[in-house]
Amino acid sequence: MRMRPLTRADRAQLAMILEVSAYPKPGNVDRCHDYETTRLEHFLASAILARPALEAAERSEGGPGALIHQAVECTSGHRGGNTHFGAFILLIPLLMGGDIPGATRVVGSTTVDDAVEFYRAFGKTEVRVIQGHELDVHDPSSIMEIRSRGMTLYDLMLFSAPRDMVAREWINGFEMTRRGADLIHAAGSGQQAVVEAFLGLLSLEPDTFVIKKHGPDVASKTMEKAREVREGLRDLQAFDQECIDKKINPGSIADIIIAALYIALGEGWEWD
Amino acid sequence: MRMRPLTRADRAQLAMILEVSAYPKPGNVDRCHDYETTRLEHFLASAILARPALEAAERSEGGPGALIHQAVECTSGHRGGNTHFGAFILLIPLLMGGDIPGATRVVGSTTVDDAVEFYRAFGKTEVRVIQGHELDVHDPSSIMEIRSRGMTLYDLMLFSAPRDMVAREWINGFEMTRRGADLIHAAGSGQQAVVEAFLGLLSLEPDTFVIKKHGPDVASKTMEKAREVREGLRDLQAFDQECIDKKINPGSIADIIIAALYIALGEGWEWD
Repeated sequence: MRMRPLTRADRAQLAMILEVSAYPKPGNVDRCHDYETTRLEHFLASAILARPALEAAERSEGGPGALIHQAVECTSGHRGGNTHFGAFILLIPLLMGGDIPGATRVVGSTTVDDAVEFYRAFGKTEVRVIQGHELDVHDPSSIMEIRSRGMTLYDLMLFSAPRDMVAREWINGFEMTRRGADLIHAAGSGQQAVVEAFLGLLSLEPDTFVIKKHGPDVASKTMEKAREVREGLRDLQAFDQECIDKKINPGSIADIIIAALYIALGEGWEWD
Repeated sequence: MRMRPLTRADRAQLAMILEVSAYPKPGNVDRCHDYETTRLEHFLASAILARPALEAAERSEGGPGALIHQAVECTSGHRGGNTHFGAFILLIPLLMGGDIPGATRVVGSTTVDDAVEFYRAFGKTEVRVIQGHELDVHDPSSIMEIRSRGMTLYDLMLFSAPRDMVAREWINGFEMTRRGADLIHAAGSGQQAVVEAFLGLLSLEPDTFVIKKHGPDVASKTMEKAREVREGLRDLQAFDQECIDKKINPGSIADIIIAALYIALGEGWEWD
């Protein structure tokens, strides 16, 4: 009995809860691991509270910048800090466009207003930035600078792409999202597929969130260890515990896995 | 930053995810325990997929019977069997009426059509019934009998109340729901409060779902053991494991805890 067809917003919410509850995902909050200030229930509540913004995106009510801003505001009602900001950067255009080709059209036609709205959203999160490398989100003159330079939200993502793999998805046609969805399909149904796809992406490229937090060496070593887990040379549970202990949480890969789950669900992948 | 006020539907969904992720809840699916065919993600997905029915209930679009039926249909898109049927029986009138006095008015003015709709919903779940004690939900003549007897949904609940503590809530003014909310408030904020309230209700009355599945002796012993845990005479984790091993899952208490969380959230209880 599968009576109700999934809407795009349903798929986005299911993607968020399936990602966070999958276990073991090295270093990240999952069914069996919390961080002190960000816990499983913060991610679950964030998935629920995002609903109005996800529905608005499904109906393309507003530009991507304003919709990302709305999603951040919807989900700010908890004390767990940033939970899904990176995921929203990917999900909002995917919801607006439906699929990857549609989302690519959406991100290609963003405006300066989208960039300004995005910066307003950014300023309300606790997202890690590299000092000196980016326009300072806490500096009101940054918004004036965006306007005077005529930068669109796509331009901002282009600017961030070398240092941020989520921004890079906007530029390269959601390449890692597509790979993630393919890994999910290849791994079969259920939660184990989420773990396998997570390890697959983690072993492909260094997580840029880990680079920002711990530097490129730690990120590269984490990638190599993920590869060893996939090759059967390293124990997954031990790797997970090591990452948790060192607070190495590959948050950008998690964001991309959420986008990949959204795509896979739309392509008929069976989650249970 | 708590920018978006919670709607009633938000509170109902938050209640569902907070209940199922709280750990350790003796015998039930929780963050650390699945049953073979019903897993954490089935409960989480059910909370998300229920949204349209919860919103319709918040707007009182239809009678309680039709809205419970809608909630069951919304959440039938997974293979985990019955997840939230008992919770919907409580949440739907609470969403329609807002609070316990409002819900008491809603349940007091149900109709024969509500009863018929409820039976249609019942027939689509895999809910445990006591043979011979109840109108058979798989027998189409039961619906004719409801009509010929002129039974309202309230009458059906009155009929079931001696053997079903969820139905009893409709009759006694949501007494256990109120107690559960008081226990949650008394236990402070966060997930630990959910566990304490669960143990509190479990030690008060035998769970009628456990009675239907394992008989009254097992249900009474489970109640006594919960009391011993509260008094520090028994280890919670060991009690949880014992229940899991014997498949003693107090599902009716879980349904009432969801209703209690909905009430507590509306009264300002802080979940995180």
